[in-house]
Amino acid sequence: MKIRGIEKRDRPGLKAILQAQEHFRPVEVQVALDLIDIALTQPNQEDYIIRVAEEEEGQILGYICYGKAPLTDAVYDLYWVVVTPASWNRGTGTSLLRQVEEELRRRQARLLLIETSSQPSYEVPRAFYRRNGFEEQARVLDYYGIGDHKLIFSKTFTP
Amino acid sequence: MKIRGIEKRDRPGLKAILQAQEHFRPVEVQVALDLIDIALTQPNQEDYIIRVAEEEEGQILGYICYGKAPLTDAVYDLYWVVVTPASWNRGTGTSLLRQVEEELRRRQARLLLIETSSQPSYEVPRAFYRRNGFEEQARVLDYYGIGDHKLIFSKTFTP
Repeated sequence: MKIRGIEKRDRPGLKAILQAQEHFRPVEVQVALDLIDIALTQPNQEDYIIRVAEEEEGQILGYICYGKAPLTDAVYDLYWVVVTPASWNRGTGTSLLRQVEEELRRRQARLLLIETSSQPSYEVPRAFYRRNGFEEQARVLDYYGIGDHKLIFSKTFTP
Repeated sequence: MKIRGIEKRDRPGLKAILQAQEHFRPVEVQVALDLIDIALTQPNQEDYIIRVAEEEEGQILGYICYGKAPLTDAVYDLYWVVVTPASWNRGTGTSLLRQVEEELRRRQARLLLIETSSQPSYEVPRAFYRRNGFEEQARVLDYYGIGDHKLIFSKTFTP
């Protein structure tokens, strides 16, 4: 497996992987695709940076999207870590996250944040973040919907 | 004073009001201007909606910027309430906020959120939000900088 920058030809494969995520609503797929399109059409911005995991045979296994948080000195948001269902529990998400953390250390980031849902259907991603050193730092009640809170997980980087 | 939608001719006046805010850093002025430009060039989007307060003589007193929070059912973010220093404590900010709250009730919003800084220089805006029914709901430590936390204030709307 190798991890590389996003290219135009990746778009159909990434869209298929997004649509295969059973816990994603259509609006989430659309927002994720919007960020993919920004990364593809505006390669010099730093708001949405995408890395793609590719198998030896050229098949896409998943991707990760992160970017600089506006108005902060050295804080980054992790927007999406999405892996094809056939690759779950095979380390692809962890490899993508490690790649981003390496890039963040080079950028002298202080903090990486991720926003996720309190819904039971999001327990797998929440467990993934906890396993990788993230802790819940804050929550906004009834954010995505009534009873569906926004949880803000954070991971601190020390120089 | 009247409150109305934003127009192209407002841009220089709004920029001057932003630059007159002593507690704003240059990067904040730039982000605020970026949102003004989105509202001016893409009038049909709902991410950044701007209302302008104008004096009888046509002079701009300030503006407010809010929008739908992506991935939520009926939650809105309040991005900026900016009033020319000469109009502080004269009710312009409150009038702008009331206008937005009226529009939010029509849109059947559940929640209005604002993110602000914990810095002492932001005590005036924090007091403004508290006076207008907002409460601190969450904070992300060391967000804008080390020791400069992000405070998330919220106000709930009941149907």
